[in-house]
Amino acid sequence: LIAEHAAALFANTALAGKRVVITAGPTREALDPVRYLSNHSSGKMGYALARAAVEAGARTTLVSGPVGLATPEHVERVDVISARDMLAACQERSASCDIFIACAAVADYRPAEIQDQKIKKGGEHSSLALVRNPDIVAAVAAGSPRPFTVGFAAETRDVLNYARDKLARKNLDMIVANDVAAEGLGFASDENEVTVIWREGEQALARAGKQTLARQIIQLIATHAGQPQ
Amino acid sequence: LIAEHAAALFANTALAGKRVVITAGPTREALDPVRYLSNHSSGKMGYALARAAVEAGARTTLVSGPVGLATPEHVERVDVISARDMLAACQERSASCDIFIACAAVADYRPAEIQDQKIKKGGEHSSLALVRNPDIVAAVAAGSPRPFTVGFAAETRDVLNYARDKLARKNLDMIVANDVAAEGLGFASDENEVTVIWREGEQALARAGKQTLARQIIQLIATHAGQPQ
Repeated sequence: LIAEHAAALFANTALAGKRVVITAGPTREALDPVRYLSNHSSGKMGYALARAAVEAGARTTLVSGPVGLATPEHVERVDVISARDMLAACQERSASCDIFIACAAVADYRPAEIQDQKIKKGGEHSSLALVRNPDIVAAVAAGSPRPFTVGFAAETRDVLNYARDKLARKNLDMIVANDVAAEGLGFASDENEVTVIWREGEQALARAGKQTLARQIIQLIATHAGQPQ
Repeated sequence: LIAEHAAALFANTALAGKRVVITAGPTREALDPVRYLSNHSSGKMGYALARAAVEAGARTTLVSGPVGLATPEHVERVDVISARDMLAACQERSASCDIFIACAAVADYRPAEIQDQKIKKGGEHSSLALVRNPDIVAAVAAGSPRPFTVGFAAETRDVLNYARDKLARKNLDMIVANDVAAEGLGFASDENEVTVIWREGEQALARAGKQTLARQIIQLIATHAGQPQ
């Protein structure tokens, strides 16, 4: 605890004056007025990053899907439900921010149609037509001007290779890779273990509480975002 | 508040010695380790019914999908995730209970297959194969011996007709119909407005807090479950 407090004190100017936008939590994609597709993201990592960004002196905005977490102090919170809502909220803010961290677990697909009325049961088998959601972090990274753009890769296998590919393919500046299949880690957990990858290097961060990891990630972002790209 | 307290006092023997099983909340149907289909049920109505059943003297079990609610005092709570989990938990208990109240918003369909690994993004369009979930309240009502079986019909239109049809088709003893499209009512709300329908009659219960409505529903159940069927 003393070490954590000391870390917070030393970190407190790393992002002074910077504007940081962080997405967090899942998105929910409606099928009809009562049903939706979603995922198990708790939002804890994104919220921990927001706290760490505030500690580092940044003006911090959370664009948050539906989660059961309190808004961290000194954080502006924008609540959204669907991936398209989240994209709109991010695009409004991405050109005027310095750092964009896409920590949300955005649904890759949404139902192709949203029914106005509750869908009635039909036969034994059915199928749900899906359409790809917008790729929020790629859209932000493709902007001009663009912030220093950080993605997350939550995977259940071949995590580092997939993360390196995603970094290049989406033109990100940094990506945080974590294995959500590892026991006791990932979505609902309070601990995590990640590898932070940028163009010229990477750093593994050992298993730790999400708030401790968040501070380490924010320090890495501050170091690399300050360098000419 | 005094009226509510008085109601609770007068109600306290209506279900003395009875065993009541109540399902509550949504179910979640996994697509893969991170994604799921679910719905907006908050579990509030089922939990309010459990409190009202305890007040009325019943030994009360909640079979609960994933919700963010505290377990009411003196209630045994069995946590489940999917519709198949919920069916198993109910079938274990239905033959030995007196009253079964199916208040959960069970997913009608689940993904036909659960993938072991996170599903990778594919093309612009996709589709999700679905298969019907078991009908829990119908399975309980078809048992022998069977409890007094109460269903819920949460609909967005033509609510009463659909509820009467469901009562007959599933061989229920009673059904509670509510219009989840009505403004300020239904799933996430603290208020509701329902019509309770049984074979020979029905009673509309005016808009009220869910706990007040729960007491009125429990009283109607106690009256009708005590009669020869």
